[in-house]
Amino acid sequence: MSTMQALARAHHDGSALYAPDGPVDLGDTVTLRMRADAKAGVDRVWIRTVRDGEPVYLEAQADGERDGERWFAADLELHNPLTSYRFLLEAGGEVAWLNGTGVSHRDVPDAHDFSIHTEDSAPAWLRDSVVYQVFPDRFARDPEGGPTTTLPDWAIPTAWDAEPAALPPRTGKEVFGGTLGGIESRLDHLLGLGVTTLYLTPFFPGRSNHRYDASTFDHVDPLLGGDAALASLTRAAHARGLRVMGDLTTNHTGAGHDWFAASADASAPEAAHYLWNESRDDWVGWLGHRSLPKLDWRDQALRERMIAGDTSAVRRWLAPPYGLDGWRIDVANMTGRHGAVDLNAEVAEHLRGTVAAMNPDAAVVAEHCHDATADLRRGAWDATMNYSGFMRPAWQWFAAPGTGARYFDAPVTIPSRTGGEVAATMRDFLAGVPWRVAARNWNLLSTHDTARIRTITGSPERQRAAAALLYTYPGVPFVFAGDEGGLAGVNGEHARVPMPWHDIDSGGPRWDGATHATYRELGRLRADSCALRHGGLRWVYAGDDALVFLRECPHERLAVLIARDACGPVTVGLGPGVRRLETLYGELDARHGVDNGLGRITLRTEGPAAQVWRLT
Amino acid sequence: MSTMQALARAHHDGSALYAPDGPVDLGDTVTLRMRADAKAGVDRVWIRTVRDGEPVYLEAQADGERDGERWFAADLELHNPLTSYRFLLEAGGEVAWLNGTGVSHRDVPDAHDFSIHTEDSAPAWLRDSVVYQVFPDRFARDPEGGPTTTLPDWAIPTAWDAEPAALPPRTGKEVFGGTLGGIESRLDHLLGLGVTTLYLTPFFPGRSNHRYDASTFDHVDPLLGGDAALASLTRAAHARGLRVMGDLTTNHTGAGHDWFAASADASAPEAAHYLWNESRDDWVGWLGHRSLPKLDWRDQALRERMIAGDTSAVRRWLAPPYGLDGWRIDVANMTGRHGAVDLNAEVAEHLRGTVAAMNPDAAVVAEHCHDATADLRRGAWDATMNYSGFMRPAWQWFAAPGTGARYFDAPVTIPSRTGGEVAATMRDFLAGVPWRVAARNWNLLSTHDTARIRTITGSPERQRAAAALLYTYPGVPFVFAGDEGGLAGVNGEHARVPMPWHDIDSGGPRWDGATHATYRELGRLRADSCALRHGGLRWVYAGDDALVFLRECPHERLAVLIARDACGPVTVGLGPGVRRLETLYGELDARHGVDNGLGRITLRTEGPAAQVWRLT
Repeated sequence: MSTMQALARAHHDGSALYAPDGPVDLGDTVTLRMRADAKAGVDRVWIRTVRDGEPVYLEAQADGERDGERWFAADLELHNPLTSYRFLLEAGGEVAWLNGTGVSHRDVPDAHDFSIHTEDSAPAWLRDSVVYQVFPDRFARDPEGGPTTTLPDWAIPTAWDAEPAALPPRTGKEVFGGTLGGIESRLDHLLGLGVTTLYLTPFFPGRSNHRYDASTFDHVDPLLGGDAALASLTRAAHARGLRVMGDLTTNHTGAGHDWFAASADASAPEAAHYLWNESRDDWVGWLGHRSLPKLDWRDQALRERMIAGDTSAVRRWLAPPYGLDGWRIDVANMTGRHGAVDLNAEVAEHLRGTVAAMNPDAAVVAEHCHDATADLRRGAWDATMNYSGFMRPAWQWFAAPGTGARYFDAPVTIPSRTGGEVAATMRDFLAGVPWRVAARNWNLLSTHDTARIRTITGSPERQRAAAALLYTYPGVPFVFAGDEGGLAGVNGEHARVPMPWHDIDSGGPRWDGATHATYRELGRLRADSCALRHGGLRWVYAGDDALVFLRECPHERLAVLIARDACGPVTVGLGPGVRRLETLYGELDARHGVDNGLGRITLRTEGPAAQVWRLT
Repeated sequence: MSTMQALARAHHDGSALYAPDGPVDLGDTVTLRMRADAKAGVDRVWIRTVRDGEPVYLEAQADGERDGERWFAADLELHNPLTSYRFLLEAGGEVAWLNGTGVSHRDVPDAHDFSIHTEDSAPAWLRDSVVYQVFPDRFARDPEGGPTTTLPDWAIPTAWDAEPAALPPRTGKEVFGGTLGGIESRLDHLLGLGVTTLYLTPFFPGRSNHRYDASTFDHVDPLLGGDAALASLTRAAHARGLRVMGDLTTNHTGAGHDWFAASADASAPEAAHYLWNESRDDWVGWLGHRSLPKLDWRDQALRERMIAGDTSAVRRWLAPPYGLDGWRIDVANMTGRHGAVDLNAEVAEHLRGTVAAMNPDAAVVAEHCHDATADLRRGAWDATMNYSGFMRPAWQWFAAPGTGARYFDAPVTIPSRTGGEVAATMRDFLAGVPWRVAARNWNLLSTHDTARIRTITGSPERQRAAAALLYTYPGVPFVFAGDEGGLAGVNGEHARVPMPWHDIDSGGPRWDGATHATYRELGRLRADSCALRHGGLRWVYAGDDALVFLRECPHERLAVLIARDACGPVTVGLGPGVRRLETLYGELDARHGVDNGLGRITLRTEGPAAQVWRLT
């Protein structure tokens, strides 16, 4: 290994081995550490931070040499709400930068500097979560047969085991009849998976089965069982130690909303709640949809009704007897943004501040389908649904050739990328945001808006390898209900398939019990491992078909191998100081190419695989 | 050339070949073009833009094939004040992104997307400028022998041809006696260089020779000739077609400022102008200097005095009889930023808006010593002093081994980088900001705050190659007075050497006439070339010791070679469609390795060199 190669292994991230793990406040002085392979000959290290807009260099001190690595530490005062920093390394006359994307032998912009922010009200449980997403109409019908509400005009009653339409005109209208009571009756399914947080897509009434077109925020849809069913569900969930998060549309309401009806009178206060084009007959709709009129956050009365007021949409459902544990914010990326107006940061801060003041233990997670870095870096939201930094690259690595699937409205099908390309993308996105945010971002393989990971991968084996990446990568595993049983779907509409309880309970063919067992095992693995939940990330190998990375916390050190296909043999160094590998997950053994000597493993797999070793 | 290599040549930037060249307004629809080598087989192209926070894809149309290249064009509505975009390319089943850093075969974050912004009040002359920086105490004494003001206590009178101190205690105190009248008497020197804008470091009185510690903004320092001398200088400059920019400290004043004296009374309005630590005896100083108390921009009365009022610091000197053409803003990067408070964007917008309202033809250029991307991207300032995107990489390429020079307070000496590393850094920084901002950023080789480029390069030949890069790279050439005659300086203090007029006028040894001739020739070259002033940038070669790039506008196509040292022979393709090369600058000829065939040149130089060809 050359000096340059050794230098490239220098590492820092925001996890507990290198940075404070708990809450930090403005004015705190924190100790930051970095490590470098002793062979790199790093003799001096400085932190370069930016203080009130000006770069400042602070020399780090040697902090010991252990197992062939030199450590350095420096104290840094958190003078600004967002402190960004990088390391300057001097190694035998060579000078290099270390930032979130690794070691650079040239100047780089500040975009990938490490960062730590103090305006952070996220609850601690968020990063320890396994999130389970339920689309209420499709999870379970009420065991009592209720509720007996008459279906609205728009609804098309549909049999539980029918295949959901993938394309209009039936999409949005098919009602399969799931209820909140149905969900409550199946909570043990979540517990069995190791789920800690139930996230429900909207439960307010609307003119569609998805309910992202709310007609009120004041009541739970009677079709789902009404307010009492939500109170009962959260009570039952809390009794089992499960948290429950709702889904709030802050960008728009439905055209059937009470406020929108009132806004037809131009002199009504509600008229100022919405954005209008040049004529009053023409309102601004989400992506041009007239059924989804966009809210105007310049209006203080709207802010009162949505956020600040005692019975606001945000507050009402966090209070007893409902006691939601937080909100997922729909279209958070567009909320408050229209043309020359950008109130997004202000709305996010108001919303997050209101939630935190009401219940410091509640969370706010933003939907964001492209690059959320700018919004997350300043701490506007507790976390995001990590489409860009996890789902997109994962899909591009795991997708079966010729799936024909697309990412949202991308005009091309999913391209196939190598492990090296995918790891570089994941690293770039991870680098952009404070580590503590990255560690609680919701990593996704499927959602109610996308194709199913089973359809993307095209095989149970590949899906299980993808699931292993989901549970071992920094961030929170997010499971769209049914993924754990290998349900399929070619797009978001088609993916909203009802849970086949008969097959789940009886071992029928419409449920992949082996994959279900994998998800259960991964849930246990994660629950048992602080390194997976809190640890840092070091990449050690990124080949076309296999990735190997380390997850490390002060108490535990793991190596993770994920292979999308047959690979190897290839020898990978896990770093100096590794003496023994103990398998925690996976079926590779010495015969399959594991070499327990000297911190190196020789990888060979005969197909998709995943393996987790504890290193000692 | 492989398909992948051909695809890597796909190109777009914000210049007139690809984007609107003139002012754009919110709501405008603009046509954006990109080009691709026909061998890459690009068959479909989309623009991906972000509209109100959401990605949108727009298909581009084929726009003809010329000289072996395919062009594509798409219309894009400027719906937001900042519109960012990139291109999605499909080439025979391969899918790639094109953003400001080039072509990527994997997903990349949005940080390097192209961008265009509508809130842009910069005057058109800014990008056509050649800027000449004068430190008033060191340029020229008054030809009449005046003014006769008594020196203040702090001043150490110093002989004109003495060497400035590089280190305390004399730095800051040596007064060499230059005046505004002296500058006026030497304006022909600027005209001979092709300078269009004279930028003066502060002319307000202070307690130092640099005057960044203003004691008032209401008068020009009598040591420099007072208010009348400024009025006379700007009148004389304007009569010659020169613009004059001043230098304003918005971050702090001197501790000797009238306001600061008044602020000793805690009940005085001036007490709120400044930032105080816990005790009233302890104020916040710039980088901790008690002599430079930091202004508190939360104070509305300060805003009135500095910006908004009729006789504000900003407005008074733009009005007759002074008629300054704009301000360089000192420590713009820190202005309004302190701890939890960040009013920087607000102050910048207020300041820039006030200047534009008073005189739409005036400019505001920010000092920013590290990564200004975030501030420039949103259009807070018209332009910046481009330390990070030009000076740092240029120094790292041209620096003589062992100069021992440092960049500001960096803890290491300037590292030596290859042409490839330097070009990558320059490309990264250029990518981050709207092209129209990049095209008017002040590119620097030396300033009053740094070592001199002659000292950095260690040789006249290398300095002249560096100067050629300065005049041919996108952005505005900025010359610190004296660089054109090869003056030396080991740091900013030492670099503030008085102009040796005796030697300049008589051809004496303290002035490098050959380098002076080079700067004059480069000034003419730039004045005559719209491609150098307005053209796009395509890199075609980045070797360790030589760089080749194209500068292209609709009327002209140039190739530029800059070599820091002997190099070659190496053959470089200038792209299809090049038939003839005409030398506009430089001394390489066919004997030195220029091959006029088929759009390729074989480069060989025997030392530092620069060459500009017109391509037809």
